[in-house]
Parts: sequence; structure tokens; C-alpha cells
Amino acid sequence: MKNERLIVVGGVAAGMSGASRARKLRRDMEIIVFEKSGYVSYAMCGMPYFVADKVKTPESLLFYEAGFFREKRNIGVFLNHEVTQILPATKTVVVEDRGSGKEQTYEYDKLLISTGARPFVPIPEGTVLRGVFILRQLEDAIALKGYILSEKPVAGLIIGGGYIAMEMAEAFSQAGIKVTVVEKMPEILGTMDKEITERVNEELRRNGVTVIKSDSVARFTERGSRVSGAVLSSGQTVAADIVLIGAGIRPNSEMAGDAGVRLEPTGAIETDAKMETSIPDIFAAGDCTSAHQLVLGRNAYVPLGTTANKQGRVAGENIAGGDATFKGIVGTSVFKTFDLEVGRTGITEKEAISEHIDYATNVIEHISRAHYYPGVSKVLVKLVAAKETGRLLGAQMIGKEGVVRRIDVFATAITAGMSVQEITELDLGYAPPFGPVNDPVLVAAEQLQKKVRQEKVA
Amino acid sequence: MKNERLIVVGGVAAGMSGASRARKLRRDMEIIVFEKSGYVSYAMCGMPYFVADKVKTPESLLFYEAGFFREKRNIGVFLNHEVTQILPATKTVVVEDRGSGKEQTYEYDKLLISTGARPFVPIPEGTVLRGVFILRQLEDAIALKGYILSEKPVAGLIIGGGYIAMEMAEAFSQAGIKVTVVEKMPEILGTMDKEITERVNEELRRNGVTVIKSDSVARFTERGSRVSGAVLSSGQTVAADIVLIGAGIRPNSEMAGDAGVRLEPTGAIETDAKMETSIPDIFAAGDCTSAHQLVLGRNAYVPLGTTANKQGRVAGENIAGGDATFKGIVGTSVFKTFDLEVGRTGITEKEAISEHIDYATNVIEHISRAHYYPGVSKVLVKLVAAKETGRLLGAQMIGKEGVVRRIDVFATAITAGMSVQEITELDLGYAPPFGPVNDPVLVAAEQLQKKVRQEKVA
Repeated sequence: MKNERLIVVGGVAAGMSGASRARKLRRDMEIIVFEKSGYVSYAMCGMPYFVADKVKTPESLLFYEAGFFREKRNIGVFLNHEVTQILPATKTVVVEDRGSGKEQTYEYDKLLISTGARPFVPIPEGTVLRGVFILRQLEDAIALKGYILSEKPVAGLIIGGGYIAMEMAEAFSQAGIKVTVVEKMPEILGTMDKEITERVNEELRRNGVTVIKSDSVARFTERGSRVSGAVLSSGQTVAADIVLIGAGIRPNSEMAGDAGVRLEPTGAIETDAKMETSIPDIFAAGDCTSAHQLVLGRNAYVPLGTTANKQGRVAGENIAGGDATFKGIVGTSVFKTFDLEVGRTGITEKEAISEHIDYATNVIEHISRAHYYPGVSKVLVKLVAAKETGRLLGAQMIGKEGVVRRIDVFATAITAGMSVQEITELDLGYAPPFGPVNDPVLVAAEQLQKKVRQEKVA
Repeated sequence: MKNERLIVVGGVAAGMSGASRARKLRRDMEIIVFEKSGYVSYAMCGMPYFVADKVKTPESLLFYEAGFFREKRNIGVFLNHEVTQILPATKTVVVEDRGSGKEQTYEYDKLLISTGARPFVPIPEGTVLRGVFILRQLEDAIALKGYILSEKPVAGLIIGGGYIAMEMAEAFSQAGIKVTVVEKMPEILGTMDKEITERVNEELRRNGVTVIKSDSVARFTERGSRVSGAVLSSGQTVAADIVLIGAGIRPNSEMAGDAGVRLEPTGAIETDAKMETSIPDIFAAGDCTSAHQLVLGRNAYVPLGTTANKQGRVAGENIAGGDATFKGIVGTSVFKTFDLEVGRTGITEKEAISEHIDYATNVIEHISRAHYYPGVSKVLVKLVAAKETGRLLGAQMIGKEGVVRRIDVFATAITAGMSVQEITELDLGYAPPFGPVNDPVLVAAEQLQKKVRQEKVA
């Protein structure tokens, strides 16, 4: 009898997690990964730090090399091989060897689509210019860093004002490049409330970053075949000898859609909690899919490596005959820009409003360490709770330290369905170097708890 | 009609929290605090940093001065006034003015006993020597630091191997004093498992601290009226020109006991969840009481400032006619010694054994940041879960960074009754400067989850 064969389409976070999990549970299965780029299992989130030269070599960004999977995990990894077609009727995929250009057809018993996402490029024609970059594959980062080292650009334009833009603004600045961010919306960081974005704006300004809002790039200008700047929709011009397009990402789902796999309105591949698609034996995981947002009670497209890993493992387990489910996310994300840590979990006030949720909210400022301990600084906490029940729905934080893991405390509390009252009762750790005796987490919950209660009484 | 009068006995964490909360809810109440020392509302936990001169002045350790409470909160604060007797039959207390020695009797309607704790002193006769210190009141810290500055001791002996001893070993070292720790038990840090204590021992050794275990001080030696060292029970001698007695603390409950208030076997004052004692209108809070340990399902004496603040607020609210309850603790505590962060929550393996709990446990080492991010270091996580249900019962962590707030995530999960499986599903924040994509919290839970499951199947 022939061994069952799993084909994995795309070998980054979800794909390699899925392949590894399936292998762990099933020694007999044949597992093949096709990855269109030259690397598997690389740390996409590490690329800004490679560009900033905090990380010296691209190899440092790999979790494992392809050889590791081949030799240690008996997973057939084909680099520079792109799956171009999925044919569910015959349970086959068509694969192009990007080196030779040759195509070959492979049969599968189970298929895991982990094709990830690609940057949304507002002006595709502009990307032919030298000096205009996206950042998705490790090759993109290598090219971008190479350009910085050889061309020594002095003025950078970042299109988009999301997390990657914030991280890359820091990276460019550390590489000696003066940065301008152009965001088409009236405010950067659309997934956060104004109390947070105000402070990020201030931090960017303090670090010499210019932020232009409610405007977009109409076209690039060039000198030779190199970018020299951009003309914005408003008519304003921006000089730039390096451009990063960081205007969000879109799921790579067209091939799945063409194969008849059902897609969601966002373009993400629809799956159930087992990560199986609408077509039997075809699973999907990672940035090409969405995730159930537990607070909103519906799917949301929040592509993140942490989610991709979890979804990949669930898919791998089910492909191997197991019975795992992916419970969902609560919308946690964090980033660092210059000297600030920024994080959110659950929903923002903006989301509470757009979702017509009856909410209470509060913003507090507190200290990151005991008031007398050297290095103490301020952190800001904003909470959103259900007005009737006091149940915590969301948290946002910003400060120089101690933000990320406190966001995790809130994420855990949200997942557990805790009320702000219950959060005030948490037995959290205290020592002067790490926080004040009344931790910002507790103080924020206490303040909001009064508000929930008072407003309920009134 | 006369206003109701609240008398608070002891004005540190629990006392001032209680007084403040009662005032907030009841403008009409007369509130008087008697504090036997010269300071209220000081940060006991900050004293090691004052000794280490990271904090310059004792005033920096005050949250508020007595004048603040008098002027801003209309709370009558009497410093250097010691309550010497509680007379429930007449609802009065006897108060001694420690300046004049005069005694006076005050009536109360409600009484809050927040007398705190005092260091356990194994050899009381030794404390008369110059150079032998305890650390409890701010005056103790001032005297200790004054001695260091004037006498420039070079060899320090710390009696006891708990948290304070660990913090003070660092403080003494930073003051240029070579430290010897003498612990009467076979291991330091009795509230932690050996995987943690091993690493603390290593860190102490690396920093030149000598640790002597299973031994105790039989007597001090002296030169003039100054301490010159100690003779241990084993006969070994230790040279020391400064000694800190940090061998644990005992609740200050004798006066309450004499008044007929019921005490627990530990000596802690017994209260209900409203922080009311066995005698009506007498409340108690803080280090003179115990707390319900939610994992053990019974009271435990874990005197900490965080708990004292929460208990004080609950007592204050109920004194003011409210209906608050103190839910309990999960045994969270954290400290820093030299370059290590150390923390625990829930129960240890030792406790699981002594409580006859059917448990599974696991120890993992993982990284504190993305593997490629500068400054990455190792953290160790040890978890204990119920073997049948997988419910998390305890967590311990040690490492150079990122320990304390991850302990808080575990504390929150324990409070919520989460299983290790549910912890693996948590949507925690990820960015390379703050952790690896698979956070140590998740990895530890994943590993233990397999063990729970596998062992259940076997």
C-alpha cells in the first residue's frame, strides 16, 4: 500500500508548523513542502531588525534551514518551487520549478494551503523603479538592506502607517535615513484608539519622522531608473531615494479560489475550526486564512505569525488523523517603535462603537516601576469593558517598558471572560524593579470598575 | 449626633488603604490612625534599594507623608503613637504617646487592626550589639544605611535565605560588602523548587556571595560593643562587621489575641472575606492576617504589600457600610537578585507533594526574545498541573528578563481555572524585542499538556 501523501503549499510559519506536527504524529506519511522562495521557516517579523543591522545575516532569521526538515524530520522541502494550480477533482497540484521553469504534477491525499499573504501595492507600476521595496520574503529584506549599504539613501518614504511602517521607520532611522510616512487615512495605526496614536505620533516626531496623513502617493518621480521621490494626491511632493510599501497585506488565496475553495469577503480562505476548507482533504492555515475573533464573535483577518503557528499545528494534527480545533484569537498585537512599546488586545473603543456595543472605557497613566526605583517611566492603559456586566473587552497600552506582557495579562483575562472587578482582585507579582505595588493593570481595572458600577447605578 | 469613629492601628499599607477607602465612601466618619513609628505609608519593599543607595533619601520611599492624609483626606494621623491595648468590652483602645510616654484612651465605633508583622529574631540577645540589624520600619533602613556609610563594613552576614535576604545580598554587594548567607534549612528559598534555587545559588556564587546551608547562628562575637562575626551551630565561624536578620516575619497579633480576637495557628488574626475578625466591629488587614490561597483552598500566611493593600481597601469599604469581599491570593511572589528575575505563582511541586495532589510537572528552557534579537537570554519555566484535568496549579520562572509579567499571565490563568491546553491557545503578544514567536508561556504549557495527556492515556 502506498503511504498517504501530504503536500504543503508554502513553507513559512503555518506550513512548516503543519508539516512538523503531521510528521510528529505520523511517521508513515509522505510529506512534501513546496516553497516558492529560496527559504523556508524564516522570521518575517525579524526583517526590520535585519534592515536596521541589529541582525547581521539573513541566515540568522531562519528558525531552521531546509536541510533540517529534510534530514531531521523527513520532510521533503522543495525551495524555489511554486504551486501554480490546485486540481481537487484529480487531487493534484501543478508545481513550477522556478529555476528551470519546468512544470510537474503531484498527487496529494491531503493538502495544506499555507500560501500566506502579499503586500498590497497601491501603485504597482512604481515597483519597477530601483529603490522601491516591499518586505515579505527574506529576499526582499536582503535586497532592501543591500540597497541601503550600497546606495546609502538619505531620505526614506514609507507608504502606510501600520505596525510594519512603525518598525521600519525605526529601522530606517537607525540606518541613518530620514523618514517620511504617508498614510492615506486621517490617522496612523487604524487598529488603535487616539490616546495611543497621539503618543506614537509624538514619538515619531521626537525622532525626526515626518508623518503625512489623509494623503497617498499618486506617482513616483525618478532619476535614471532610481526613485527620487513621490508626488502625493494632494499635489505635495516628497523627496525619497528609498521607498518601502507597507500599506497592509492581502491573503494569497486566488489559486485556492480558482480551485473552488470557498473564500470569505476579505479574500481569506474559509476554514472551520479544524482548519479544513470547503473542499474535503484541503486544509488552510496562516496568513491566507482568517481567525475567529472571540470578542467580536466572528472571523477577522488579523494575519500574524503566532496565529499562523497555532493554526498550522491544528491543521497538521487533523491531517494526521487527530481531532484538534483552533479556538480563535482575541486580537492581540504588539510592536516597538523607537523607545516605545505599544500593544493592544480585544477590541478598541472605535471597534466597540462600530460594533454597537454598550461599553465603558477609561484611560489611566501610571508608573512602570516603583516610584522611587531608578528608570521609572509612565505607561498609559486604556480599557474597554461591557457597560452592563463589566466584562473586559479590550486593552491598549503604550510606554517605554512593561507593556507587552501586561497586554498578555489582559489577553488572558479577556479569554477567560473576566470582569474588570475580577481583574482588580488578581494576585499579580510585585517587586520595585518591575512595577508599582498597585500595578497599572490593577489600577486601570479599578478605575474602570467604578465607572461601570457608577454608570449602572445612575 | 456624634460622628462614627474609625480607629486604625498601624499606618502602613493595609492601614492607610483602609483609612483612605473608608474616607472616600464616608465623608462624615471620623478617622484616626495611630502609627507607632515616625512614618506612615512607606514602601517596605523599597528598603533594600535605599540601602543599596539606588534610592537616595528615606523620604523617597514614602507614598504619602502624614500631612497629606491630614490635609487632603481629613484623616487624623498620629505618628509615634502606639496602641498598647484593645478593650472590646468598652470599645476603646489605650494609646501611648512614645514621645511623652503618656497614655490616653480613645473610643472607637469601628476598629481596623493593621499592625503588620515583625522580623523573627532567632537570637534576641544579639540585637543589642552595634552592627546587628533588622529591616522592617523605615527607621531600621535609615539606621542600617547610616551604619554602612559611617562604619564602612566589609563583611556582611545575612541570617535567612528568603526573598529579603536575596534582595539584601544584592544591596550589600552594591555597597561593597562581601556577603555570607546562613540558612538553617538545607536549601535557600524554601518556597521554590530546586530547579529555581539551583540557579539562584549559581547567581549568588557568581556574585561572590557565600551561602551556608543547614546551619544557624548560635551566637555573635563582638569587638567592643560592635559585632565582629558569628559562631554557627556547626562550630564554623563567620567574620562579619554587619549583620542583617532576615529569617522571616511573624504577625503582630498578640495585642489582638489578648483582646479576645480569634487567631489562627500561624498566629495570624482570623478574618472572614469581609476582613472582619471574630469580634464585631473589629476588622483586620495586611501582614497581621492570612489570606485564602485559592489553589490550596485554605488560608495561608503570605504577607505581601499587594495583598495588604487589597485587604485594606476591602476592610475600609465594609467599615464604611459597603459590601466588599477579599477573594484571596494564588501565592504570587517575585523578586530580583543581581541579574536574575525570579517568580512563582500557584503551588510548587514540593507543595503538590506535601498536599497529596496528583500532579504533572515539566521544566523547559526557552528564550526571552526572538533568537536573533540582540540581548536574548534564556528563561526557565516550571509548571505544575493537575494530572487528570490538566488544570494549571502553579508556575515558577527564572531568567534575566521577562519573568515577572509572564508569572502574571500564569497567575491570571490559575485564577481563571485554565487548563494547560487552554493556555497553549492563548493569543499572546509577539514582537521580536519582547519574546520568541512561540512564547515561553505557550511552550511550557504545550510541553506539559502532552505530558498530562500522555500520562492519562498510559
